[in-house]
Amino acid sequence: MNKIITVGREFGSGGREFGRRLSEELHFAYYDQEIIREISKRTSLSEQYIQSIVEHRPSFSFPIHIGQSFYPLSNPAFEQTMAIYQEQARIITEMALKSDCVIVGRCADYILKEYKPFRIFVYADIDSKIKRCREKGPEHENLTDRELKQKISGMDKKRAKYYELYTGHSWGDKLNFDLCINTSRTVIKEIVPAVAKLLV
Amino acid sequence: MNKIITVGREFGSGGREFGRRLSEELHFAYYDQEIIREISKRTSLSEQYIQSIVEHRPSFSFPIHIGQSFYPLSNPAFEQTMAIYQEQARIITEMALKSDCVIVGRCADYILKEYKPFRIFVYADIDSKIKRCREKGPEHENLTDRELKQKISGMDKKRAKYYELYTGHSWGDKLNFDLCINTSRTVIKEIVPAVAKLLV
Repeated sequence: MNKIITVGREFGSGGREFGRRLSEELHFAYYDQEIIREISKRTSLSEQYIQSIVEHRPSFSFPIHIGQSFYPLSNPAFEQTMAIYQEQARIITEMALKSDCVIVGRCADYILKEYKPFRIFVYADIDSKIKRCREKGPEHENLTDRELKQKISGMDKKRAKYYELYTGHSWGDKLNFDLCINTSRTVIKEIVPAVAKLLV
Repeated sequence: MNKIITVGREFGSGGREFGRRLSEELHFAYYDQEIIREISKRTSLSEQYIQSIVEHRPSFSFPIHIGQSFYPLSNPAFEQTMAIYQEQARIITEMALKSDCVIVGRCADYILKEYKPFRIFVYADIDSKIKRCREKGPEHENLTDRELKQKISGMDKKRAKYYELYTGHSWGDKLNFDLCINTSRTVIKEIVPAVAKLLV
C-alpha cells in the first residue's frame, strides 16, 4: 500500500507550506490545487467556481448529511455541490492509489480513511496567523489587524462547516489526527525533516 | 537557557513511557514521580498523600482560582493543598533550571511558561487506551471493559479539573501545546527518535 499523508490546516498556519515541503523532503507526490484543476477538467466547470463550492458549506435551509438517505427531491444547486464533492472524493482516491503522496485539505483524511493515511493537522495561535498572512499575502496588506483577524476566523469557520458537513466530525478535533503541529513558535522548514523521519 | 520539554498525557495513552524514552534518547533528566518524592521530603507529608492531592481537584464548595485574590478565611485543607501546589511549582522550576529535562504532567507546561518549554501532549482513542492499560497494568485485570473505560475517563476528568483549577486553561486544548501526538496507531519507541530530532 502507498504511504498517504493528509494535512488539514487552519488558515494562516502555514499548513500548505508544511505539506509542500514535507512532500519534497519525502519525494512524495503533492496534491492541493491539482485536485481542483482535475475536477475542472472532468466537469467542465471553472476552477474558480469549484473552489467556491469546495471551500464553503452550501447554504441549504434543511439539514443534510452525506451518507444518509435524506435528499431533497430536486435542487440543482444541491445536486451540483454533491456531484463536485463526489468527483473530488473519486479524484483524491485515484491520486492516493497511484503513488506515495501528501494531500492538503479537502477532507482527504476522511475520504481516505479506509487506507489509514497518516493524518496531520497544522494550526497556530491567532497572532502568528496574522503575522504569517501579512508576510505571505500581499492581498492582506490593506486590512487592519482586526479585519485580518475576522477574515482568518471566517475562513476557519467555513472550513469547519464544510468538514463537518461532509464527514460528520468536528474539524480540528485532535482525535481525528495522528499528529497536530502548532506552528506558532516554529520555523516550518526546520521541523519538516524531523516530521518526515516519523513517516519513513 | 536549558531545553525544557513538558509532556501532558491522557491516562492510558503511554505518555509516561513516551516521556521516559524521549529523555533517554536526548540524554535529558527525567522528572515524574521524583517531584512527589521531593515534595514529600520537604513537607514531611507521605508520598501517597501528596499524590492524592496533586492528582485530584480538592472538593471545595466555593469557586477558587489560583492567582486571583479570593481565598477563604481559614480552611486547613485548602491551605495545605495550596502549599503543596506551591511547593510543587517551586520544585519543578528548580529542576527545570538545573539542566535540560523532560517533565511529565503536573501542569509543568503552565508553571514553566515563562521559560518557553516545548510542550507535548500525548493522547489516544479509548480502545487503544483500554488495550494499553490491560497490557501494562496488572491491577486492571479484574475490571470489565466497561469498568476500565469508566476508570480511564474518571482519571482524565480528574486531570482535566486539576489542570483547569491551577491554570485556568482547558486541559488537552491543542492550542496550549506545540505538538500533540496520538499514540492509537503508533509504537511509542519507534516514534521517539524522530520526535527527539524536532528538539535538538
